[in-house]
This record gives sequence, C-alpha cells and structure tokens, in this order.
Amino acid sequence: MKIGLLGGTGIEGKGIALRFAAAGAEVVVGSRSEERARAASEECNAALGRAQVRGLRNLEMLAWSDLVFLTVPSQHAMEAVKAHRNDIPSGKVLVDVTVPLRFDKGRPTYLEAEEGSNSESIARLLPATVPVVGAFKTIPAHLLAELESPLECDLFVCGDDPEAKEKVMRAGSMIPTLRPVDAGPLSSARTLERMTVLAIHLNRHYKKKGARYKIVGLD
Amino acid sequence: MKIGLLGGTGIEGKGIALRFAAAGAEVVVGSRSEERARAASEECNAALGRAQVRGLRNLEMLAWSDLVFLTVPSQHAMEAVKAHRNDIPSGKVLVDVTVPLRFDKGRPTYLEAEEGSNSESIARLLPATVPVVGAFKTIPAHLLAELESPLECDLFVCGDDPEAKEKVMRAGSMIPTLRPVDAGPLSSARTLERMTVLAIHLNRHYKKKGARYKIVGLD
Repeated sequence: MKIGLLGGTGIEGKGIALRFAAAGAEVVVGSRSEERARAASEECNAALGRAQVRGLRNLEMLAWSDLVFLTVPSQHAMEAVKAHRNDIPSGKVLVDVTVPLRFDKGRPTYLEAEEGSNSESIARLLPATVPVVGAFKTIPAHLLAELESPLECDLFVCGDDPEAKEKVMRAGSMIPTLRPVDAGPLSSARTLERMTVLAIHLNRHYKKKGARYKIVGLD
Repeated sequence: MKIGLLGGTGIEGKGIALRFAAAGAEVVVGSRSEERARAASEECNAALGRAQVRGLRNLEMLAWSDLVFLTVPSQHAMEAVKAHRNDIPSGKVLVDVTVPLRFDKGRPTYLEAEEGSNSESIARLLPATVPVVGAFKTIPAHLLAELESPLECDLFVCGDDPEAKEKVMRAGSMIPTLRPVDAGPLSSARTLERMTVLAIHLNRHYKKKGARYKIVGLD
C-alpha cells in the first residue's frame, strides 16, 4: 500500500506517515517544496530508526501514491485541493483528515457550513474519478506522532465509494491497536468532524491530551 | 435524587426509570394518563422485583421531581415541552434525551435544523428558570432497559447551566459502569445527537444492537 501525504510537513502529516511507516507501508511525504518534503521525511526516518519515508514534491507524490492523505491545516484544505484537482490520477483515493474549527481563547468551535462537512465540500471540488474518504479525523495528531503510545481506539472511515472506503479501512488495519470502523456515507463526516471538536473540549476540560473514541458493543 | 420522566411510558422512559431505580433513586413515571403511568411503573417494578417506581400524571410528576427527563418520542418533544412549559416549577432541571431522526428503509438520517440541536430548540421554549441539560442521547434505550447488561460506556452531559449539568452528572454516577463526562455547552447536543445516528448506523452495518461510546485517554 503506497501512502502519500498532500502537504505532509505538519504534525498531522508526520503522525500519519510515522504510523503507516512503522506498520511497514511505503510512505511519501509531499510538499510544495522538495526541500521541506525531504526535511520532513528525514525527521520521520530519525524517529523510525530507518530510512523508510521519502520526501517528494506534491506532483510526484500524487503520481506515485495509492492513497493520498490530505494533511494540510484545515483552513488551507480547499485551496490545496483546488490547486491539485487536475493532478490526481483517476483511481487514486483522497483521504480527508481535516476538521474545520476555530479557537476562541482556547475554546474550540466547529465551523458549521451549510454545504455540510469539509469532506463533502472537498468531494465536490474533485472529479468523480477521485473518490473522497473521510478518516483519521477523530484521532489526535500529536498522539499519532508518538509512536510509543498505543492508539487503542477506533478509526472511523466514511465515504460514498465502497471500494475506496474498503481500501482505507484495509490500510488502517495495518496500524496496531487501531480498529477501522465503517462509519457510513461521506455525510457522516458531519458527525466525525464535530466529534473531534468534542474530544478537544474534553482534553481541555479534563486537562488531558489524547481523548479519542472507542465504540463499545461492536465485538 | 428524585427522578421524573415526562412521557415515560415508552422504551426510553422505561430504560432510564429502571437504571435509576436499580441504583436506589426515587423514580416517578409521568404520563398524560394516570392509568398508563401506573401500568408503566408496574412493569418497571416487576423487572426490579420490588415496588420502587411510581406512576403519576405529568403535572404531579413535575411538581415532585428534581430532574425531569424528557422521554417522549422525539417527534413529540416540542409539543410535550410546549404543553408543560408553565407547569415546571423553577429550579427543576429538564434533561433532554431526544434525538431527531428519520428512518428511510431502515437507514437512519439526522434531521438537521437551522436552529441547531433538539436540546437547544427545547431550551428556547422554556423559561430561563428551568435549565435544559442534554444527556443519555447516545445510550441505546433497549440496553438501558436490560438491567442485566452492563453499560460500560460514557454518559455525555451538556448544558449551559453548570449547576444543572453537575446535578445530572451526579445522578448519572449512581448507575454502575456508566461514566458521566462533561461534554460542554448545550450546543454540544449537535454533536451528541449526530453521534446517536452514527451508532445506529454501526448497529445496522455490523448487525449489532448496543453500539455506544467510550472516550479513551481521559483516565
């Protein structure tokens, strides 16, 4: 499974790159700048203790990957997708991990949009040949980046293309103690994005950092 | 703690009545009809093996209770609150457990409203002297009604009145293996109501009945 990260030089990209690389997947960090992509990949390899993550410019990463994770900060998500809408070869899957939120004095607020979730807005920007899957939204980025911390939670995966969703779930199942869960259609991202804001609220209220979700009663 | 149920003769009311009564709380099932209230309370007492739940007309239940749980079917919630808006003595807390959803061929859909969540709409109907708290939304009603099944999940409690929220959390902590969690302001009901729809989807997809939530990383 070839995992690419579109705008993968931030904490979210690093976390996802590290978890997949540690699980044995081939990973490429993409960036507008080849230099920044390389620097981020070297940081990952230092944490992994082996050279397994590569850095490429976004265009080359897009051509290489099977699954492309959109890991730019959420306020740049639309812009990044618009910039690359014609560069993503058909058959690739775009995995949207972004959550549109705002902080007011540390308090998180979900940025509600009439059109629905961020994932749905992104899907409308892309040609039908590039299915969008929402995933990893509810898992704290900094926790993903701490390889020594077990995740022990659920990976909610939503999307309207069953095959694309299945691919992302299969990829997610490589990561130890993470359980992929089929969260239904892409519109479920409306729920998942809000759940992230709730988790951040819980972290703040209970002075924790890694609040995340596990469904009871599925076994 | 005096627990009352407004329109408590359905499965949701029965489940909440049973869990609180089993935990030692005083419980009154309210209904428009005294006869139906009594029948529902007798059903609860039969399940409990002792006479601990009483049935009263809604008006008398409202005068007696500390916490009033709104347990009518969600499509009747507004109507029930409107009918009793002037009958709830100040200082009582209304606990909204309803989730507005629709089923299309078994598929659950959340009924989005511009005004936000059901809990927020209900709060706007009531005088400021009766705070509204959202809780128990994500816990399956039929599971609450099966006293022999441990809940082993979180009770998300949201509201804008800290004292009222605290009262509901304290009440919830009486129920074994249920962990009350402060889910923030009443607007968090937008998240919690959608989480219920997601849990119903998961039940349907995985052929289960009791999907519910537990936050990892709070201990």
